[in-house]
Amino acid sequence: MTSLLVLSRFAEDYKPLLESAKLPDLEITYAATPDEVEVRGRDFEILLGEPALIQHILAKLPSLLWVQSMFAGVEQLLDLSLRRDYVLTNARGVFGELMSEYVIGYLLFHERRMLERLEAQKDHRWDRSTTGMLRGKTIGLLGVGSIGAHLAGIAKHFGMTVHGYTRSSEDCPDVDAYYHGSGLLEFAKGLDYLVSVLPNTSATRHIMDASVLNAMPSHSLFINIGRGGALDEGALVEALTAGKIAGAVLDVFEQEPLPPEHPFWDLSNLLMTFHTSAPSLSEDISELFIENYHRYINGEELKYRVDFERGY
Amino acid sequence: MTSLLVLSRFAEDYKPLLESAKLPDLEITYAATPDEVEVRGRDFEILLGEPALIQHILAKLPSLLWVQSMFAGVEQLLDLSLRRDYVLTNARGVFGELMSEYVIGYLLFHERRMLERLEAQKDHRWDRSTTGMLRGKTIGLLGVGSIGAHLAGIAKHFGMTVHGYTRSSEDCPDVDAYYHGSGLLEFAKGLDYLVSVLPNTSATRHIMDASVLNAMPSHSLFINIGRGGALDEGALVEALTAGKIAGAVLDVFEQEPLPPEHPFWDLSNLLMTFHTSAPSLSEDISELFIENYHRYINGEELKYRVDFERGY
Repeated sequence: MTSLLVLSRFAEDYKPLLESAKLPDLEITYAATPDEVEVRGRDFEILLGEPALIQHILAKLPSLLWVQSMFAGVEQLLDLSLRRDYVLTNARGVFGELMSEYVIGYLLFHERRMLERLEAQKDHRWDRSTTGMLRGKTIGLLGVGSIGAHLAGIAKHFGMTVHGYTRSSEDCPDVDAYYHGSGLLEFAKGLDYLVSVLPNTSATRHIMDASVLNAMPSHSLFINIGRGGALDEGALVEALTAGKIAGAVLDVFEQEPLPPEHPFWDLSNLLMTFHTSAPSLSEDISELFIENYHRYINGEELKYRVDFERGY
Repeated sequence: MTSLLVLSRFAEDYKPLLESAKLPDLEITYAATPDEVEVRGRDFEILLGEPALIQHILAKLPSLLWVQSMFAGVEQLLDLSLRRDYVLTNARGVFGELMSEYVIGYLLFHERRMLERLEAQKDHRWDRSTTGMLRGKTIGLLGVGSIGAHLAGIAKHFGMTVHGYTRSSEDCPDVDAYYHGSGLLEFAKGLDYLVSVLPNTSATRHIMDASVLNAMPSHSLFINIGRGGALDEGALVEALTAGKIAGAVLDVFEQEPLPPEHPFWDLSNLLMTFHTSAPSLSEDISELFIENYHRYINGEELKYRVDFERGY
């Protein structure tokens, strides 16, 4: 019998989803907090859960072989003080649709001047000023993994040109032009929208700095749906205040929740969404776990394995 | 030599576009108002323009053979007191992309609770409440012409189910289920979003009435990007006030501009965009005219001919 611990604030949501899958040879324990787990007396071979919670019991599970993260970001498990003697897989492939809805939604919010229309309505003003459109625009993806690839596909569907900046890969057919390495400023120069999908690693830290923001056209928009660490937040405040770019939409931040004194709160050309762009839906995560569990018991390689060194 | 009159408030925008096409055997006159046209002394065989302006000079052009409307709506040319001895073509096939951007934008504005997020930011409140998504939702199209078909395609791309209500046609492959005739209430019942793309004709007048609005689920949204005449505006005010549907987004109205005393202005669950959803872009309209002009001189049938009886 294999033992699985589901450790999540929403562990209860996973019960019906996992039970109905009738996974063979598996005993499942559900817990909402690390304290709830009787770790002293119990050991588990598999863990499905939230990295911030898993972190606290990692040292107490001698039989642990596999951790399936419910989130894409696994920073909390990459600390050098923590063990790395197990297989870590993260959630991937399930966020593309939600992230794409988010990005397209906020691009249209911007182009369609939705806020200005609302103001006009409040003022009882028949405002026929024209609006912009996505068709013909150029979107740049900073990072083209599964999320970037999904977004690229939908951007093409809206008649946009898609540029991609990656370490070296060029495997998404919907990207019209690729940039790498020192081509970052060249990449930034030609864009109407720049969307960062980058994870938080030593290689991505503050990659969106003043030089990149200065290279972007003054009418352009920056959207961050990756991780806050990829952005130099001070540089963005300056760029937005000086009008070097038209606006920004941020879902992620270096520190979350954002500190109350942070200048972001009061910038009129900055919109924030508080890390809600793509919630980990229990249906999606269960499906992903079930597929990986079947691979696990068949001795096959697990999907979405994290490289501890690379950080994603 | 064929003579063309371009009659539009934006006639000047058409000059470079039409000149660069070097249309054979054509002399072009540009005018921004009917008064500007020396109609007494001049006659034209072809007219390219805005229906509301064309209306005023229709009677004064004995040689008129063809009118290409710059807009989709041609109500002003359908009055029974006006001549019908010419070929009338309207603008079609060019609004699908813009209308789709509009609809998807406002659906995401609603699902993503963008206004609530803005309020949270104003209040310096880290608002992690979850939002909805398009994936898995059912959208109903009231009218499936070229605009409806384009919208259906993009809705499928977002993982939505598409229902269509039409007079009889069932020729869009992206529509999952069709409804006709007396099936209107059945159609309305199963929807998350109902989008009217209907023109203003005697057959569509007030088709969106209290019975249809009552049949819609209470969480559903109504969007009108067709013509205002298809909606019983009083019934919508009642439905929104009583919470029978969750909200409405209106681009078109029975009377435009909307009268200052109209209750629509102050309904909190109603958004208005003042007939801006799909502007007739001179680039698009020129392209359409150029194609039709080549058909015209080759004696071929013109595209997008309006049936005066049917009204579109």
